[in-house]
Amino acid sequence: MNSFDKISVGGEARTELHDLLNLTGAEISVNVLPAGAGVPFVHSHRQNEEIYFVTEGEGKAVIDGEQTDLKAGDWLRVSPSAKRQLSAAPDNALKYICIQVKANSLEGYTMSDAVV
Amino acid sequence: MNSFDKISVGGEARTELHDLLNLTGAEISVNVLPAGAGVPFVHSHRQNEEIYFVTEGEGKAVIDGEQTDLKAGDWLRVSPSAKRQLSAAPDNALKYICIQVKANSLEGYTMSDAVV
Repeated sequence: MNSFDKISVGGEARTELHDLLNLTGAEISVNVLPAGAGVPFVHSHRQNEEIYFVTEGEGKAVIDGEQTDLKAGDWLRVSPSAKRQLSAAPDNALKYICIQVKANSLEGYTMSDAVV
Repeated sequence: MNSFDKISVGGEARTELHDLLNLTGAEISVNVLPAGAGVPFVHSHRQNEEIYFVTEGEGKAVIDGEQTDLKAGDWLRVSPSAKRQLSAAPDNALKYICIQVKANSLEGYTMSDAVV
């Protein structure tokens, strides 16, 4: 494998990065939900923690029946077993990234994993 | 642990999300390098793959001696052992997120990990 891979992602409805970047520790999707649209199903995960980052726009998430508003700059962690569904605001698109990682997989990080 | 945690991140120089969001599979930092500034050291990692996402601005990364330009919308995967250093452009800040995950930790993902 190369030391690195790089791609540029524009405004596509959905781009999945795992294969494009040769990721081995995460899957990441870059998503645009048009105004008034929602993910058409509720889902949970077997093993994976999901982390959502709202890059533009606004919307909401319903997680285990609890609603939370989403706006640009928000970060959201969702436990694997939680039932989740995202939607854009009626009058504003929701642009977000979703990071999937295996729950409890991280060991050291930052100074305890870095070699300077 | 709660089903979810949410925070909002503004324009701080650096915000580390692991403890704020109770992450268990990743560490994520949200970073701003002012125009002309660079990370003041070269580093690599013992176990962790890093994924960089440029949210605004421009700059460059030098990875194992190879330079690659960075601009908003770029995604970059860096292997654990690669020696890396990021800097902002002389006349433009570089805003980016950095995701650390343990290399080779991901098992199923998306449809092979989801329960719909």
